[in-house]
Amino acid sequence: MDSSHVALVALLLRSEGFDHYRCDRNLSMGMNLGNMAKMLKCAGNDDIITIKADDGSDSITFMFESPTQDKIADFEMKLMDIDSEHLGIPEAEYEAIVRMPSTEFARICKDLSTIGDTVVISVTKEGVKFSTRGDIGTANIVCRQNTSVDKPEEATIIEMQEPVSLTFALRYMNSFTKATPLANQVTISMSSDLPVVVEYKVAEMGYIRFYLAPKIEEDEETAAHAPSQPNTEVKPKVKVEYQPQEIDLEEASKPLVENKTEVAAKLETETNGEVAIIDVKMESKPLEGTDLEKEGKPLVESKTKLETNGEVEVMDVE
Amino acid sequence: MDSSHVALVALLLRSEGFDHYRCDRNLSMGMNLGNMAKMLKCAGNDDIITIKADDGSDSITFMFESPTQDKIADFEMKLMDIDSEHLGIPEAEYEAIVRMPSTEFARICKDLSTIGDTVVISVTKEGVKFSTRGDIGTANIVCRQNTSVDKPEEATIIEMQEPVSLTFALRYMNSFTKATPLANQVTISMSSDLPVVVEYKVAEMGYIRFYLAPKIEEDEETAAHAPSQPNTEVKPKVKVEYQPQEIDLEEASKPLVENKTEVAAKLETETNGEVAIIDVKMESKPLEGTDLEKEGKPLVESKTKLETNGEVEVMDVE
Amino acid sequence: MDSSHVALVALLLRSEGFDHYRCDRNLSMGMNLGNMAKMLKCAGNDDIITIKADDGSDSITFMFESPTQDKIADFEMKLMDIDSEHLGIPEAEYEAIVRMPSTEFARICKDLSTIGDTVVISVTKEGVKFSTRGDIGTANIVCRQNTSVDKPEEATIIEMQEPVSLTFALRYMNSFTKATPLANQVTISMSSDLPVVVEYKVAEMGYIRFYLAPKIEEDEETAAHAPSQPNTEVKPKVKVEYQPQEIDLEEASKPLVENKTEVAAKLETETNGEVAIIDVKMESKPLEGTDLEKEGKPLVESKTKLETNGEVEVMDVE
Repeated sequence: MDSSHVALVALLLRSEGFDHYRCDRNLSMGMNLGNMAKMLKCAGNDDIITIKADDGSDSITFMFESPTQDKIADFEMKLMDIDSEHLGIPEAEYEAIVRMPSTEFARICKDLSTIGDTVVISVTKEGVKFSTRGDIGTANIVCRQNTSVDKPEEATIIEMQEPVSLTFALRYMNSFTKATPLANQVTISMSSDLPVVVEYKVAEMGYIRFYLAPKIEEDEETAAHAPSQPNTEVKPKVKVEYQPQEIDLEEASKPLVENKTEVAAKLETETNGEVAIIDVKMESKPLEGTDLEKEGKPLVESKTKLETNGEVEVMDVE
Repeated sequence: MDSSHVALVALLLRSEGFDHYRCDRNLSMGMNLGNMAKMLKCAGNDDIITIKADDGSDSITFMFESPTQDKIADFEMKLMDIDSEHLGIPEAEYEAIVRMPSTEFARICKDLSTIGDTVVISVTKEGVKFSTRGDIGTANIVCRQNTSVDKPEEATIIEMQEPVSLTFALRYMNSFTKATPLANQVTISMSSDLPVVVEYKVAEMGYIRFYLAPKIEEDEETAAHAPSQPNTEVKPKVKVEYQPQEIDLEEASKPLVENKTEVAAKLETETNGEVAIIDVKMESKPLEGTDLEKEGKPLVESKTKLETNGEVEVMDVE
Repeated sequence: MDSSHVALVALLLRSEGFDHYRCDRNLSMGMNLGNMAKMLKCAGNDDIITIKADDGSDSITFMFESPTQDKIADFEMKLMDIDSEHLGIPEAEYEAIVRMPSTEFARICKDLSTIGDTVVISVTKEGVKFSTRGDIGTANIVCRQNTSVDKPEEATIIEMQEPVSLTFALRYMNSFTKATPLANQVTISMSSDLPVVVEYKVAEMGYIRFYLAPKIEEDEETAAHAPSQPNTEVKPKVKVEYQPQEIDLEEASKPLVENKTEVAAKLETETNGEVAIIDVKMESKPLEGTDLEKEGKPLVESKTKLETNGEVEVMDVE
């Protein structure tokens, strides 16, 4: 979560997406996102990446192997002690869900931010309208529902129970759209008085979801309430509220059990958007027939070949 | 015109170049060039652009429609009250006219500006010579007349009545060459004691012309006049002089007449190079047979599909 | 040499590499590297470059001719009076020589510099290890010997008499790797207590060699000597020492003799890394049968077509 508690990022990479995944005990690790990004950028495009952490260790290791095994790199990063209450991501039914080409959404956010600071996103049956207003003028961009396209990634699909109109800071939206290279489509889910969810799928593995609290529109406020402060700073109407989850500490100190499936890694940024809590999770379904000695081996181990095109950048939510 | 009255830009887009063009009354609108650029940059490469202004309105609307009509954007920009005397572009016969590849001219201006601040452009029958001098040394680049090329856009053609040699500030020239992506060829027209004209054609629609007053060469000055100030700042020998044109205000208040052809839009930067006066003109030849009611419709309306390669940038003449 | 006497660059371009090369007398010329770079960047990709200097002149001329001869540029650069003792490049037998893909070496230096300031390069029979340590963690990259590759430029070849482990400032290494576009392979030659040599071949013409004095590793120092200053600045253990060479001044004033072969141009940066002494050399083997009058012609003249891909940048060793 960013320091002003307006935005939150959640990244999920399911265990099935890894070539090799092993997690003997649920682990929560605090990491500096900037430092993690520095290290992951050292991986080559075709490298096999292995992420390893020992039980109780204060560091995590990123291993990069070239396809020919001629170049092997070990990057060891110090973990952080994050004084964290666990963040519960709000689950909700949304009144309006828009799915559209991610590049188009990115372009709209970028274009509008040259005119104004905030965007009003209004969903009706006809389409979704993005509006802004600034010193130099106003801008309105309407995207119509469009399902009859040659390529499914070019479709714009609107599912709507209620018309919704919410205002957001474009600065955050432009941070979110840095995830555009991850997926052809973006999903924007909105309900009145709830944070918007901007979601990009990550291959078949999971997703990255950005939550952003809406702002109170200046005009509405002054119209409805009082004309006393016509130019006050627009303030968030709704804070992103997260219920601290119970963490079962006894669970965490249980004896080592080998598990195989349905383990999920969840990445959440917290506190000030510069650090992350990484939860590596296991399910308590025991592994049939395996009883290998795992002493001295890393507690968490996952191996995958990530194919990047070098354009993905790390989100910097301030 | 820039604030020091040394440079002037004129852009003409003829009505024939637009798919749809309508102008019921001559209109002059003041615009902030930077703001207009911000808005026009929001158009997609394949978008259909419509520019609209109502009579007496204090704003202009840029409308961008995607080819599939799925995305429609309206950008409304506030107009400026520019206290303007109308700029008359000097018409003249030029002693020397050089037509050459625009990329080559841009490259020469860029290269020379790494060595010195000013360029001497000398035209003789043999060719055109660009020279500069700086702290680190000197540079001379000669381009010979060359009409026997495979592609006409690679030709260098020199039409000359009199040899001409004039000195210009490279800083302005480098601003002008930002228009290079517009045309394969640039035309440089020079006469002694007159501003140079650097012209790029804009498709089949018109042109952008840059006027720049020559400088007095330091050496000439000190040689001819007095050795008292050998290192004085080089000053413009000739100011760009513009005769304020008579604007027929009665013409502007004439009753609305629908016209169809030979309407031309002219764009001139003025005052400080950051704002522009846009004149949308009509000819008084009445449209045969049409007598449509135009009440409530925009007074000026033009629609075209501009194909850009994303490399054209807005000139910033200071 | 850079101002702190830690790094030195030597560039050799042999006369055979030029289409035309003429040098009547050994010449040593002081040049500002930044200014020379500015001028050379003005050459087009397909231009024929001629470098000319007259005897006793205080300037050098770079001439660029387009293939069609339609554009001819002369750039004349002022020479510098460098108060120089001649730099003798240390010749040595090296205990370990690593040849590897230049892009891989560049990538490793770039990656490690995101983690730490210095790199430990350790050569053993198994491979070469690059290690660093910083505030955020540690990194080790091992490249194994690999000669069985499809393309020879992808090979990693290690010739080793003794295992060597030396520490270097990554800042300098990253300056050196700007030469990467020159050659597919880089050669790293190391001996204990000697400067490392990082060499890139320049086509069939010569080479550019970078010399860098190793640093004393902090841990070693504190372990071996005293724990009094655990966090002192790491200082160079070995200075790059250069013996001033004797310059035969009489040789330089010998009568003009035309020579043809085995002339070599050597470029060395000196004093503070911003200026260069360029030695244009001749062999005293007289040219058979030629006795042309050379009065008024340039003493040094060389002509070549350099093919660049526009990516080569000038090294800025501070």
